[in-house]
Parts: sequence; structure tokens; C-alpha cells
Amino acid sequence: MSGFLDTPSVQKLKALAAHAIDLTKGLTPERIETMRLSMAGFDLLYGTERVTPEVMDALYELADETRALKKMAAMQAGEILNRIEKVESENRAVLHTAMRDQFEERQSAPAAEEASGMAARELKKLEHFLAKIDREERFTDLIQIGIGGSDLGPRALYLALQAFARPGRRAHFISNVDPDDANAVLSGVDLKKTLVVVVSKSGSTLETLTNEEFARARFHKMGLDPKEHFIAVTGEKSPMDDPSRYLASFYMWDFVGGRYSATSMVGAVVLGFALGYPGIVEVLRGAHAMDRHALTMPARKNLPLTSALLGIWNRNFLHLPTVAIIPYSQALIRFPAHLQQLDMESNGKRIDKQGHPVSFSTGPVIWGEPGTNGQHSFYQLIHQGTDPIPLEFIGFRKSQHPIDIEVQFTFSQEKLLSNLFAQSIALASGQASSNPNKFFPGNRPNRILLADRLDPFTAGALLAYYEHKVAFQGFIWNINSFDQEGVQLGKVLALKILEQFKAKRTKETPSPFPLGEAYLNILS
Amino acid sequence: MSGFLDTPSVQKLKALAAHAIDLTKGLTPERIETMRLSMAGFDLLYGTERVTPEVMDALYELADETRALKKMAAMQAGEILNRIEKVESENRAVLHTAMRDQFEERQSAPAAEEASGMAARELKKLEHFLAKIDREERFTDLIQIGIGGSDLGPRALYLALQAFARPGRRAHFISNVDPDDANAVLSGVDLKKTLVVVVSKSGSTLETLTNEEFARARFHKMGLDPKEHFIAVTGEKSPMDDPSRYLASFYMWDFVGGRYSATSMVGAVVLGFALGYPGIVEVLRGAHAMDRHALTMPARKNLPLTSALLGIWNRNFLHLPTVAIIPYSQALIRFPAHLQQLDMESNGKRIDKQGHPVSFSTGPVIWGEPGTNGQHSFYQLIHQGTDPIPLEFIGFRKSQHPIDIEVQFTFSQEKLLSNLFAQSIALASGQASSNPNKFFPGNRPNRILLADRLDPFTAGALLAYYEHKVAFQGFIWNINSFDQEGVQLGKVLALKILEQFKAKRTKETPSPFPLGEAYLNILS
Repeated sequence: MSGFLDTPSVQKLKALAAHAIDLTKGLTPERIETMRLSMAGFDLLYGTERVTPEVMDALYELADETRALKKMAAMQAGEILNRIEKVESENRAVLHTAMRDQFEERQSAPAAEEASGMAARELKKLEHFLAKIDREERFTDLIQIGIGGSDLGPRALYLALQAFARPGRRAHFISNVDPDDANAVLSGVDLKKTLVVVVSKSGSTLETLTNEEFARARFHKMGLDPKEHFIAVTGEKSPMDDPSRYLASFYMWDFVGGRYSATSMVGAVVLGFALGYPGIVEVLRGAHAMDRHALTMPARKNLPLTSALLGIWNRNFLHLPTVAIIPYSQALIRFPAHLQQLDMESNGKRIDKQGHPVSFSTGPVIWGEPGTNGQHSFYQLIHQGTDPIPLEFIGFRKSQHPIDIEVQFTFSQEKLLSNLFAQSIALASGQASSNPNKFFPGNRPNRILLADRLDPFTAGALLAYYEHKVAFQGFIWNINSFDQEGVQLGKVLALKILEQFKAKRTKETPSPFPLGEAYLNILS
Repeated sequence: MSGFLDTPSVQKLKALAAHAIDLTKGLTPERIETMRLSMAGFDLLYGTERVTPEVMDALYELADETRALKKMAAMQAGEILNRIEKVESENRAVLHTAMRDQFEERQSAPAAEEASGMAARELKKLEHFLAKIDREERFTDLIQIGIGGSDLGPRALYLALQAFARPGRRAHFISNVDPDDANAVLSGVDLKKTLVVVVSKSGSTLETLTNEEFARARFHKMGLDPKEHFIAVTGEKSPMDDPSRYLASFYMWDFVGGRYSATSMVGAVVLGFALGYPGIVEVLRGAHAMDRHALTMPARKNLPLTSALLGIWNRNFLHLPTVAIIPYSQALIRFPAHLQQLDMESNGKRIDKQGHPVSFSTGPVIWGEPGTNGQHSFYQLIHQGTDPIPLEFIGFRKSQHPIDIEVQFTFSQEKLLSNLFAQSIALASGQASSNPNKFFPGNRPNRILLADRLDPFTAGALLAYYEHKVAFQGFIWNINSFDQEGVQLGKVLALKILEQFKAKRTKETPSPFPLGEAYLNILS
């Protein structure tokens, strides 16, 4: 297939970008009402992006020319998409969708079917395990020890859905190798009633094993047997798949990448503990609904694909290097951190699937904080800084809790939505003024994903929406969104420096590493 | 005075940037050991920035030509720096440094002296108030209600210093107008033993007043009198300065901007409650030490000024639009969010102090998460993405808690530092490889601020280091880092939309706002 830059639509888009619509004049109520895609409670509103029908036509042509929907079908069917041709690389299927392909209209391709069967077995094990600990009433708290994908997605979802947690059930997370992190969490719970979930696919993640040892030592010190408290989420037959050390083991596989693993046992155990088994099933059901939508909906009605294309317009044609994702929902406080990993680790790549360096920009910097907080913080730069920042807003028609307060004739949720819509309009349309300090240039592109209410189903669908947005962008750019070779070099060098520290105790002679030694000289 | 682009040093720097040092060849142990500035337990290590002695000479010339140190002296002396000439603008002194100018070598300029005297009176009031609640033993928990600067800085510092909190003292924060946020916090404490601090300089911040009403309603419902639990941090004579409604009032002034207010009563009340009065005094002492350093140290030995210049090199000459700030300390989890506000709200400006649009880039996008977590997340893009991202690392020689664990002959803190140094080296020097997927281009500029241990003194100094880095950049760019006109437009439009919501209940006819109505049509 041809590369991204060689597609005819890219030439069209370049020409269109030279005369992108001026939203300070062009933003109308009709745009807001008609530039809208809907799907089961979700609305994607993009009248405040700098696009016209001609631009959208060219973007959908780009999706067609780069066979974005066909690659989504190949992914969900279990074809080997995680690879770089002709060089040593991961060589794997990409089947996070199989984790939730447990409902109607299941995939029939053998690889996908096998994977969803494996996921079904783990779900069944989880259902029994949760029923057992319910009967025994032993645990009130759960601590998840994991890092990266074993932490950010599950943590973001847990915080998002805490409002739906079973009474008296709490979850906590330890990720950082910083010993202060583990200390703080372990000191805040009653270990006798605490379940510890250790998550590492390889069973050898340095931070996670260190924190596990740290936690085990604390249990021993309290006279408690870790074997009665620790469970493993790991690869089958990994060093952690060891019934002599764990109360139970749940499995994960190399066809589910860490950052895509929130709906595997990596997220299911903690969410099942907090929400109950039916709660995690709802999360999976929501994700599956979005998987089916991404797979079956034509491009022009496809929410994650359309969002991916708008992102590519902003990145490659309007040349905007960052994206702020702003949920107007405090419960989504850590969702931007999850999306930061999901997007930047997937699409922060400089070679295409044939191993050639790309000559265009790939994944942007993703960052964000919840609104309205951000309005009192970095919005100054977004409105009046020298560089436009595209925004993706997330909003909800209703709050999670039914409790709200009427102050000055409106409810808090209405204030939240008023602010969300006001920002969308203000950023796009700007403001003329003879006072240069009150002039707003406008043309800050943004879009809103509006959903009904942040419940388990919606959270699952939202998670999958972003997974597919990211995957579609990778498909269109012809890069491998599923490996992460870029994290290796730092790991290797960290071990070399660690050897220097170690040598102080073992009296061994470490391999020379002058750059690392320079830092150690500064330390001492 | 002349503008940034007209300075002779800018021409030199442009020429030097065209041939910036290639760190894949040029990074040596000597660079790491010699490109180092030290100050009272802090080391700024910048051998991994793309600078040479010639570049540093030109940067220090730039500081000189733009009179950066003289402006710092003017700021700390209380001159009116928060203004734009010839147009309506804020017209204020900028005296957050006076909040901690309570120790040796105090400012003698009348404005600064007066401000530090006002701060001293509030500190004395706080000392008495804290002693009183200690004697009465009434409170275990404190909830701070505030948003933006009244939330991010105090929250970041509280989390940073939780390890030093008095036993049984906890703080919580409500910021978002999202009713789920207030619900979650209020449900998690024993209101009988809870002190509520409401923070708003004007006494009229919509989110804060709404959340205050929300909290008061909850106290009433529990049969508790809010008057016995609520205290105000506000401007003298603001609507909130009302002894009939508050147990106590502490004052703030218009010469301390929200994002610079963490060492005023905005942060001092909550930190004093958590750490005890001597703890907050240590924070102020640390901040003051950095204030004196920034004020008195020649440019070439001045840490925040040197950091500001390195940032300007990356932003204006290497043309890098974002900065990641990565503390290798879990306790600093919310410090990047505070710095995001501090930097982006201060320097996200498009006009200079004479009101003319600037023709160069000002404040970058600031974002970040603690290491090592980020290594398992967005570092892929930082190492192998298409755009270089400058990084500012923060590290500590020792952990906060004395408890650490030895696994495989090294301690967790050593693992943390090994990772920090390894990343610094890997990002700068990259890696050659015939496998394009294992090729790391390197030349990712980064620097490390290394301190001894994250204690109250160090946290105060770290806070002030970044305040002055930001202020120095604003001085050099000749922009007003102390106003925030860019947040006004969104507020105005939000009120217009709120009127539409309100009209549903009051049956009034709202002012027409067709763009807002378009969103309301989509909601219903």
C-alpha cells in the first residue's frame, strides 16, 4: 500500500488547509447543530473544528484510501498487526476487543474466537472468586500494584466509577518505585482486610516486583501470611504464576498490550471487586458496543474514526503539535493520564510499518485536567497564548450522584455544562476588541464528546472510543500503534547505573559507564 | 526599552541555534559534572541541554540586555509590574515574595515592607488560631474549597508534605463545580470534626460559592452550625469577610496573584493545620531562601534565571513548543498541575507590556507526571516520536520516609535515581542501530534539578524556584506574567448560557445567544 503522504486526499487536504475556515466569522448555530454524529447516548459535536464539508469529504477519502475500516476489521479479527516488516519486532495479534467480545454478534475469525474464549474463562474464574470473597467477607480494601498500563487505565476507571462502588469497598494503587508511594498506601489500610493484586504480564517488571516485596514485608511484619492476601494477574507460566505464593492467578496474554488492557483481568479484578461482578460486565458491554460501532459503522457515521480524522487534520494540516483532553467531570480526573499513555505510547512513532522513517508528524502530546478547574489555570494560554491548542472536551448531560444544589436558580451540573459550551464557543469565535489585552484571536479548534451520564456502560464505551480513535490514527499514518521499543533504552541504562549502586554493597566491579558515573559523583 | 527580538544577543542565539551541539556525539562525563549550578542543597544539572559555553554566554547577555535581574529587584521591592501601558489593565504590585519576607535581610522598600507587615499580621493570627484549635481538639479534618490558584498550589504542597503531617490531621480539597466532586469529599469525612476553609479573593468566585453552599447545606442537614466550622480566606471587606458567617477570616490582597498565592494564607492555613505552625514557617523559610537567591545571585550562578534562559533557548531558538516537568517523587504528583497553571497562566500571552502583539513564541505547554510512572507511559513518544520534547526532571537524593527496602542489593530510592539519570542520558545521547525500530535519535534536551530531600523547607524553595523561573521568562520576553485577561471571555459566555438554563425556572426571557441555544437544543 502507499504511504500517508502519497494519498491523493493528502494533496487536497493540504490545499484546503491553506484556506481553513475562519471560525471568528463562520461559527453559526447551524454548524453546531448539524456537525454532529450520534451513537447510543453519545454525541460528537465538531462544529467548532476548522473544517468544512469539503474538508470532511477529503478526510473520509483519506480514511478510505488508507483502508482504515478494513484494518479495524483485521484487528478485531485477530490478524497480526503488531509488527514492523523485515526487522526484528513484536509479531502479534492485537485483541483487546476480544476481552469484551462476550455478548451479541461475536467475532467468528478463529484467532478472535479463541481469544474471547480465553477471556471468558478468566471472567468465569473472576466471577467465582468474587462470589467466594463475598461469602467469606474477608476483604474491604484492594491494593493494585502495577505500573503503566497495569495502573493508569484501571485507576482512571476506578476513580471514574467510584460513585457506583459497593458500600465499604475501596481500591488503592501503588505504581511508582518511589518507596514513599508504597508507604503511604500501605499505612492507610487495615492489612488484615486487604487484598493485594500484583499485575505484571512478564512477571518481571522491576517497579512492580520491588513494590510487591515491599508490601509482602509489611504483611509479614503484621504477622499476616501474604499467600492469603496476594493474587497475581500475569502471563500463564510467568514467574508470578505460582500457587505457592498467590491465593489466585488470573491470566493476560501478549495479544493485549498494556495500555489496551483495562478491560482484561488487569482492570477487571479491581473493578469487579469495587463494583461487583455485574458492574464490570456493564463496563465490558459498553466497550463492546463501541467496538461494534467502530467496526461496522460507515466512516461518515463512525464516531472514533471521525474523531481520528479531525485529529489528523489538526496535526498534519493545521500543524498543531498538542491536544488537550478536558473532561467536564471530576470523576474523570485521571482519564487524561490514561489517554496520555494510550495515545502517546501508541502513536509516538517515527517509522512506518515498513521500517522507514516517516516524513510527517505522528502522535501529538496529549495532556489535560478536568474542567472547570482548567479554566482557572491553563486556559489563559489556550485563549491568548501564541500557539493554538486543539481541545477535546468530554461532557455529560447528568451528574453521577442524584444530589445537586440549586444556587441562583441553576444546578451545579447546569453550571458545568454552561461552562463547557461557553468555552467551546469562546475558543472558536474569539472576541474583537480595541484593547489588545481583551482581544481573543479565536480559531482554537475544539470538539465535544457529549454522553448521557458517566456510569459503567458509558465508561466502557468511552474507553473503547479512545482506543479506536488512536488505532484509526495509527492505521491512517501506517505506523505500528501496538509496540513500544522506545521504552527499552532507558531501562537498559537504568540497569547499568543500578549496577554501580549495587557494587557499593557487593564489592563487585561494575561494567564501566562513565556517563552514569558522572551522575553518581554528583550525588555523593 | 527594546523588545526581545531587537536585542543583539537574540541575533547571536539564532546563529548558534542553526548549529546546536549534537549530544549524540557531544555528551561527556565532563559536561555532566561541570554544567552544574548549586545552591543550598539544590543542584541544577544541564549538561544534557543542547547548549555550549558560547550559547550560555549569549543567554546571559540576553538576561543582561533585558534587565532580568533588575526587574526581579523591582518586583520584590513592590513596583507596579502588573500592567499593560496605555490601556485598561490591572495596575498592581506583585508581592508574593513579601508573604515570606519574614526572616533575615528583609526588603526595605516601603511597598514591600508594608506588604510583609500585612503578611506578618495574618501569620500571627494563624498561629493563634492554630493554637486555639489545638487546645480545643475539635478538628481532625480540613476541607479547602477553592479553585485555580486557591486549589492547585496548596493541594500540590499538601500532597508533597503529607509525610510530615501531624498524626490524625488530614486535608481534602473541593474545587470543581461538578457536584460529584463535593459529594465525594463531604461523604468521606466526619463533619463534626471538620474545618472548612473557603478561599476566594473577591468573595464571588462562582464555583467556590456554589461549593460552599453545597457544603453548608450538608452541615445543616447534619444538625451542625456552619458558623462553628467555616473560615474564610478572602480580601478584606469582600462579601466573605463576615464574622456572622465565619469562625475566622484571613486576608489576601490584590498584589498576590492566585497562582502565586500558595505561601499566602491561601496555602498557609491548610499547611499550618496539617503540618503545625512550625511546618508552614519552614515552607516560608525555604521560599524566602530562594527569593533571596533569585534576587542577589549574579546571573551565572542564579538557578531560576539560568533555568529560565535554558527554557527560552528551547522555546525560541530550538522552537520546541512544550515542556514536560517530571518529578521522580510520587509525593509531587500534583506539582506539575500547579506548575502548569503557574507557567501557562503567567506566560501564555500574545501582547507585550506596551500592548503590541509579539512576533515570537511565549509560554509553552507545560505538562507532566511523576517518574518512573511516565516511563511506562508517554516516554515512548519522548524517545521516538517525531517532535523533541524538552524535559525538566526533579529528583531527590533521599526519600521522605526512612523506610526503604533492599531488593537485589539496591534500595528503591536508588532504583528511582538510576532511572532518572538513565533517562537523562538516553534522551540526550540516543542510540544508533541498524534496526530502525531500535534507533533512538537522541538530542532530546533535558535538565535535572536535584535536591536533598523533599521536606517543608525544600518544598518552599522548589515552589519559589519555579515562580521565579516563570517571572524571569516573562521579564525577558517583556510580557505581563501577572494578569489573566484570557479567562474572562469564557466566564462571560458561561453566564449567558446559564441565563438560558435559569429562564426555564424563572420564566424570564433570557438575552438571546443563538450559539449557546444551539448547544441547549442538542442537550434536550
